[in-house]
Amino acid sequence: MILAIDIGGTKFAAGLVSAAGEVVAAERVATPRDGGAETLWEMLADLVEPFSADVKGVGVGCGGPMTWPAGEVSPLNMPGWRGFPLRARLAERFPSVPVRLHNDAVCLAVAEHWRGAGRGSANMLGMVVSTGVGGGLVLGDRLIDGGTGNAGHIGHVVVDPEGPPCGCGGRGCLEAVARGPGLTAWALAQGWKPATYGDAHDAGPYREDREVTARELARDAAAGDEVAMAAMRRAGTALGVAIASATALCDLDLVTVGGGLSQAGELLFGPLEEALRGHARLDFARRVRVCPAELGQDAGLVGAAALVLAEERYWSAG
Amino acid sequence: MILAIDIGGTKFAAGLVSAAGEVVAAERVATPRDGGAETLWEMLADLVEPFSADVKGVGVGCGGPMTWPAGEVSPLNMPGWRGFPLRARLAERFPSVPVRLHNDAVCLAVAEHWRGAGRGSANMLGMVVSTGVGGGLVLGDRLIDGGTGNAGHIGHVVVDPEGPPCGCGGRGCLEAVARGPGLTAWALAQGWKPATYGDAHDAGPYREDREVTARELARDAAAGDEVAMAAMRRAGTALGVAIASATALCDLDLVTVGGGLSQAGELLFGPLEEALRGHARLDFARRVRVCPAELGQDAGLVGAAALVLAEERYWSAG
Repeated sequence: MILAIDIGGTKFAAGLVSAAGEVVAAERVATPRDGGAETLWEMLADLVEPFSADVKGVGVGCGGPMTWPAGEVSPLNMPGWRGFPLRARLAERFPSVPVRLHNDAVCLAVAEHWRGAGRGSANMLGMVVSTGVGGGLVLGDRLIDGGTGNAGHIGHVVVDPEGPPCGCGGRGCLEAVARGPGLTAWALAQGWKPATYGDAHDAGPYREDREVTARELARDAAAGDEVAMAAMRRAGTALGVAIASATALCDLDLVTVGGGLSQAGELLFGPLEEALRGHARLDFARRVRVCPAELGQDAGLVGAAALVLAEERYWSAG
Repeated sequence: MILAIDIGGTKFAAGLVSAAGEVVAAERVATPRDGGAETLWEMLADLVEPFSADVKGVGVGCGGPMTWPAGEVSPLNMPGWRGFPLRARLAERFPSVPVRLHNDAVCLAVAEHWRGAGRGSANMLGMVVSTGVGGGLVLGDRLIDGGTGNAGHIGHVVVDPEGPPCGCGGRGCLEAVARGPGLTAWALAQGWKPATYGDAHDAGPYREDREVTARELARDAAAGDEVAMAAMRRAGTALGVAIASATALCDLDLVTVGGGLSQAGELLFGPLEEALRGHARLDFARRVRVCPAELGQDAGLVGAAALVLAEERYWSAG
């Protein structure tokens, strides 16, 4: 068994993954928004404790940025960890087995390639579209790390050089257009008023001081709200342009799209396909297929485990 | 010695390349614009004949498109070869040694990585900007082929989704903006009148029915012509945006830029750097360096030879 850890924007998860890639046990806790470095570490140590006996290796996915492969992590939404030596601390705790760590979006892409929608595809990009837009790149059947472990950052491919400012400091990145908060902000500015459905999935009545989610936007789009539908077209078109660029550069077979926004289905994938097919015109580029990610909430754990279990494909570092 | 062959837009070249990557002898002839498949083949056979004794392998760079690794070629500017089985015909002629073929832009990138400006860089994109815009991608110290041998097509990364139509059928590709003929057409439409210098490099007085070259445009830009300078900014900006996208996706260390337009120097590289640095803002992306290609007219032969001489890095196929 491999101990797999997924340190994400909304939760910490830990579990055991079998050699076949099955998650046989897992626990989750909400990601603490604050707390010092050691408090966060102790919380993680408690979470993994029940899964720590006789593991053959430890695989970790963690939000970036980070140094790689050293694994000093500075997750954007966890100010308590800035340059925290997560890989080294876990290696101290598990001294006799390999401990490996990668970006969480990379782990999701690895999971789709190893056990999800990307099985059998040697050249794929696995994308996540939610609060941010991230990804991982597999070419020639191997995970591509790039010079510093940061290959796969599809969210910062430029889709409109004069477009909206991006959190990275640039302008017109895919993420600036298509990330959930960017989309909801755009829709609100266009006059969108989130609807109230009064059911279990409802976020409650709209008030200007409440945070609205991309999920609400997608639901309103499905219900026919014009602005919400335009927001989905806006995101889908940007995704299609970025995928066309990635396909030209990397000669991809397949792109998988996961994350909250991908739940919008045809409202997102329709405009995505239209933009992609309009731009990807060379014969080799027309081959590319785009499909939803297949694995659910366990994907991060499966991908993290693959860093150990399928190291010949997914771990190039020492 | 390796027999290296370079079948490009303006010339056929063939020569002998030593194990160290030195071109020890070479011949060139102008690319025939017409002639049937067998005429072209005989011309090539005559060209390679003087270099054919005791070669240990044959490496070929050829204009695309082509099937790869099968090597059935259909170079855009040679209508006589449509699906011509170039690799198979050369393998018949040289039955006892490896015969390998790749896209000519890929061979130029391989040459820069193996023996040029990219030595020591494990993650680089080698670009050529001339009549078209092409490239080759090296990641993890290996040539990336992609699903069909077409990885590296940086010319079809989208730099402006609403931009000018591209020869590929899409819109706003880097090539549509930055290729030489696209640039001169744009400059003429903006009122550029090519200057006459009356020296050996002069293309003669401007007439509307004469083909003007990007080299004339670059020369006029260097002489201070406002429209010509704006054209160089336009190309440089588009190159910077595309390189920013490629860097985000592939975590590149280095990009080399060769081809006719790269001769414009600072007039091109200045705006390129400005656009690149404006868009590539994440820490890892700021590392990327852009430099002119180092190798001259022999680069295509050197890269073709590397397909055989350094196969562990540059040849993944059978």
